[in-house]
Amino acid sequence: MSENLILNQLVDSLKCLPGVGPKSALRLAYFLLQRDRNGAKKLSNSISNALAKLNACSLCNNFTESDICNLCASSSRDNSLLCIVEMPTDLLMMEQTHSYKGQYYVLMGKLSPLDGIGPKELNFSKLIDRIKKGSFKEIILATNFTNEGNATAQYIKDILNDSEIRISRIARGLPMGGEIEYVDSGTLAQALEDRKNI
Amino acid sequence: MSENLILNQLVDSLKCLPGVGPKSALRLAYFLLQRDRNGAKKLSNSISNALAKLNACSLCNNFTESDICNLCASSSRDNSLLCIVEMPTDLLMMEQTHSYKGQYYVLMGKLSPLDGIGPKELNFSKLIDRIKKGSFKEIILATNFTNEGNATAQYIKDILNDSEIRISRIARGLPMGGEIEYVDSGTLAQALEDRKNI
Repeated sequence: MSENLILNQLVDSLKCLPGVGPKSALRLAYFLLQRDRNGAKKLSNSISNALAKLNACSLCNNFTESDICNLCASSSRDNSLLCIVEMPTDLLMMEQTHSYKGQYYVLMGKLSPLDGIGPKELNFSKLIDRIKKGSFKEIILATNFTNEGNATAQYIKDILNDSEIRISRIARGLPMGGEIEYVDSGTLAQALEDRKNI
Repeated sequence: MSENLILNQLVDSLKCLPGVGPKSALRLAYFLLQRDRNGAKKLSNSISNALAKLNACSLCNNFTESDICNLCASSSRDNSLLCIVEMPTDLLMMEQTHSYKGQYYVLMGKLSPLDGIGPKELNFSKLIDRIKKGSFKEIILATNFTNEGNATAQYIKDILNDSEIRISRIARGLPMGGEIEYVDSGTLAQALEDRKNI
């Protein structure tokens, strides 16, 4: 509705969401206005609340309400291990494995020159500070196995090369339950290359 | 992150959007907080703005900022035709055909007993009022050809049966460019039943 300014503004701002184009923005707008006004009110409030009150943990860079997040403040974590991930969701996935008890650092992105994200944008100095202040024996690079994730891991390895700390990368290979017949050849080549003695 | 209350609230309220489950709500939340804080601020504002300032047009029941929407207020529309649609998006689609110049009435839903939406919830009295106050010669039922849309059309036809006004339903049949080989048999059966002389 070209004449309806306020509705147009709502549709426009819904388009900022990833994967939402003009058509679904319009559908979402009508949904919020007609079907779920309570939910819409709550959504509006919690967005502005989150924007105002969430900040980066001064240690791990993840979102938190206080200066240091609960995970970093916990006394039950192993202070000799640091796992570097791209996004908070990656941290959650790592935690769900229940097999890692060390510290984390969340890059909040990956090196991606095409999107204008270089070392400056990722604020690597905060990461280096964190490493200097800690007493880590190993740093695990758990960025994605995409081109950008690999480049980011390589970049971090390069800037940490002079230190005594062991630097590792999570393993590549077949997924659990993976069948050789159905796996892509790139993954199979990696699994072959990274084979280990048993 | 179970410990992060404000983030959890944001994720919860994002789940009110249709088609957004726990995982994509989390991804959306991180996106809003990290990648597009400006867009998030705008979204929060425009939702509360729309909730506060948009109301139903007193004539066609569509969303508007004033008492009567621009379309109803326009003097270039044909006042002898009323087209009844389920949703504002349907009205937009009708307008995009550029082949209808009459008035509209937006039901803001359809009869759907399973979802608890009966004649009361759809506020048919407003529709009847609109028809009584107008001088329509024909009412076009443009609800969807779903079970609910058909039931809604039938219900409206029943309550208007005593009036002198001609009541019509938009046509069923093959879509433009439709090939008989690929169309579903229900549509083909309807196209056959509703065949017309040429």
